Amino acid sequence: MNSEQQAKFNEVRDGIDEVDRELVELIARRLDLTGEVGKLKAGLQLPLYDPQRETELINDKRQLAEKRGVSPELIEDLLRRVMRESYINQSKSRAKVETVIDKNIVVVGGRGKLGSLFVKLFKESGYNVSVLETGEWDDGQKSLQEASLVLVSVPIKVTDEVIKQLSGLPDDCVLADLTSIKLRPLKLMLEVHKGPVIGLHPMFGPGINHLAKQNIVACSGRRIESDHWLLEQLRLWGANVTMIDAKQHDELMGIVQVLRHFSTIAYGYHLKAEDPELQSVLSVSSPIYRLELAMVGRLFAQDSGLYSDIIFSNPDNIPMIKRFIQRLNELLVMLENKDIDGFKAAFAEVTSWFGSSADLFLQESNRMLSRAQESSR
Amino acid sequence: MNSEQQAKFNEVRDGIDEVDRELVELIARRLDLTGEVGKLKAGLQLPLYDPQRETELINDKRQLAEKRGVSPELIEDLLRRVMRESYINQSKSRAKVETVIDKNIVVVGGRGKLGSLFVKLFKESGYNVSVLETGEWDDGQKSLQEASLVLVSVPIKVTDEVIKQLSGLPDDCVLADLTSIKLRPLKLMLEVHKGPVIGLHPMFGPGINHLAKQNIVACSGRRIESDHWLLEQLRLWGANVTMIDAKQHDELMGIVQVLRHFSTIAYGYHLKAEDPELQSVLSVSSPIYRLELAMVGRLFAQDSGLYSDIIFSNPDNIPMIKRFIQRLNELLVMLENKDIDGFKAAFAEVTSWFGSSADLFLQESNRMLSRAQESSR
Repeated sequence: MNSEQQAKFNEVRDGIDEVDRELVELIARRLDLTGEVGKLKAGLQLPLYDPQRETELINDKRQLAEKRGVSPELIEDLLRRVMRESYINQSKSRAKVETVIDKNIVVVGGRGKLGSLFVKLFKESGYNVSVLETGEWDDGQKSLQEASLVLVSVPIKVTDEVIKQLSGLPDDCVLADLTSIKLRPLKLMLEVHKGPVIGLHPMFGPGINHLAKQNIVACSGRRIESDHWLLEQLRLWGANVTMIDAKQHDELMGIVQVLRHFSTIAYGYHLKAEDPELQSVLSVSSPIYRLELAMVGRLFAQDSGLYSDIIFSNPDNIPMIKRFIQRLNELLVMLENKDIDGFKAAFAEVTSWFGSSADLFLQESNRMLSRAQESSR
Repeated sequence: MNSEQQAKFNEVRDGIDEVDRELVELIARRLDLTGEVGKLKAGLQLPLYDPQRETELINDKRQLAEKRGVSPELIEDLLRRVMRESYINQSKSRAKVETVIDKNIVVVGGRGKLGSLFVKLFKESGYNVSVLETGEWDDGQKSLQEASLVLVSVPIKVTDEVIKQLSGLPDDCVLADLTSIKLRPLKLMLEVHKGPVIGLHPMFGPGINHLAKQNIVACSGRRIESDHWLLEQLRLWGANVTMIDAKQHDELMGIVQVLRHFSTIAYGYHLKAEDPELQSVLSVSSPIYRLELAMVGRLFAQDSGLYSDIIFSNPDNIPMIKRFIQRLNELLVMLENKDIDGFKAAFAEVTSWFGSSADLFLQESNRMLSRAQESSR
């Protein structure tokens, strides 16, 4: 590079630095403004997450980008990333709001990871919250007798015995649980309590700190319509609440949780036994395989008890897994018979079962992979 | 909301709109500037991807964000997203550069998806490129006899017969292939050609349009050192090139590709047979399960021939899959015996096998999930 080229090069790079400094400034201003919106909303008890406003805002800026010759997809991605930050900040600033709601919430197991998230959310929204751990039943009697909501958030294996302790709640108190199976806890709650009963299954891990856009599945037990204050509160926090039958929920969870976790654990167990060098595996991995390996590895950084409980407590666990192994064997036989046409035919059946979702999933995961690529160094 | 509150609300929202308009403008300016950098680099034959400059730039703006009270993580994510766009644009603008390199490239199978990507890249960089499809051997003799590089990019099942056609290349011509197994094609290439030989395995699908940050595994056959012009060219396009022994490559691929694809196909095949309603499954899915389902579904939007070829052509396929099924059965027995302690012990063994990578994978996938959440509506 000659000195003239070098000078030009430096000039353009200085320009980029200047743009990036302005970018930091602009984002700081935007976060200040959304912080103000958050405070206004909190004061008025308005939901944090406003899908319509979000869609309008994004479409508007996509059009502007198009006019300016910038990829609309790029602008949408940037705005969504900044908006995520705004939700986190707004949900923090809610903590400072001085609304007081005249309802007493008791969270049984409120010092656990998921329980303490709900304790935090209810407190931030101005409810009176008390926490009860198993073994504190005697001390907790007073708070139970004044409760508007008793929320059971304990490990699945002690859910039954905890619910059985909860007789004698006020008639208008809501009894709810957060267990990942729904039919059996719901039945027990209906037996022990004569008032409103609902089973909830939050479809997220305890790592999150706000509910905006999170899914919660709700199985109504008794006297809980879809406009009940508890469900309204969940929506106010930004959650999507889906009402579903408890039996159907448990069947779906056999697929969504049990089989998935089991096969992932088996895959990890297989890797350990095959014992390749992990760094060598990663050095020859495509981005998609790296992501798949990360999805396996992440499980083993978490609590084995949580996953074992989910797998061992599902009533359909063994037959479901046997059917899965049977299907692996069917495909293996094709491989042994060098029946590549049969294998392709089976593949085609699955393609048509997924229908248009297969393409959607491909696009969705490609977007994710592009983003994953950004952070690789 | 009273009219005063409404006015305040509108004022703040207008402020956000204004910031977002400025953001579009700023990004447009940044892309213009990086476009200039791209042209300067192309003229000077400098690599597109400059990891050191990227790291410095990001660290600098992270510090600035910190001072300004903005999350450094947020600014890094935004900058990385804009940089990805810059790479795409810069790699497009390279097409217009008028460098001429005195090397003739022949891509056998250059009208296939992966082949045509390399045709495009070589052309953009100023090489003379010709494309040869099987069945065009007679017409192609002249270009083969003048070739500096013959790159074989054909389906795995015809790789053998194609390579056997390639005798009589010039002594200094490089013979290379892009097959997903390496030992056998490398052996055949060494037999048929006396000059430089190398096996390449690009660790990405044909969907990409630039090589920045992509992984390519290279297995040296003969007279290819790590500073060979071909490897330098791959690096100039931004690729990470990893040199590895062909035998080790194939063993690792048994795990990375064969078992992974096979178990994913079996999982889809199982879903189809269980036949739950896909929309119901999605309505009760956590973000992580949605992602896992997308990773399964994406496979079935793609070519069954590609995946079948990879699985059926691997020499270790059947014993590997049998060992995997055996491990599923071991865990199933624990479940049947209600041996939750044994199950947890197996889990713990895998956790310690993953070591510190488990935590890294958890963090990495959590970041991805947060981003996936942004785009859910």
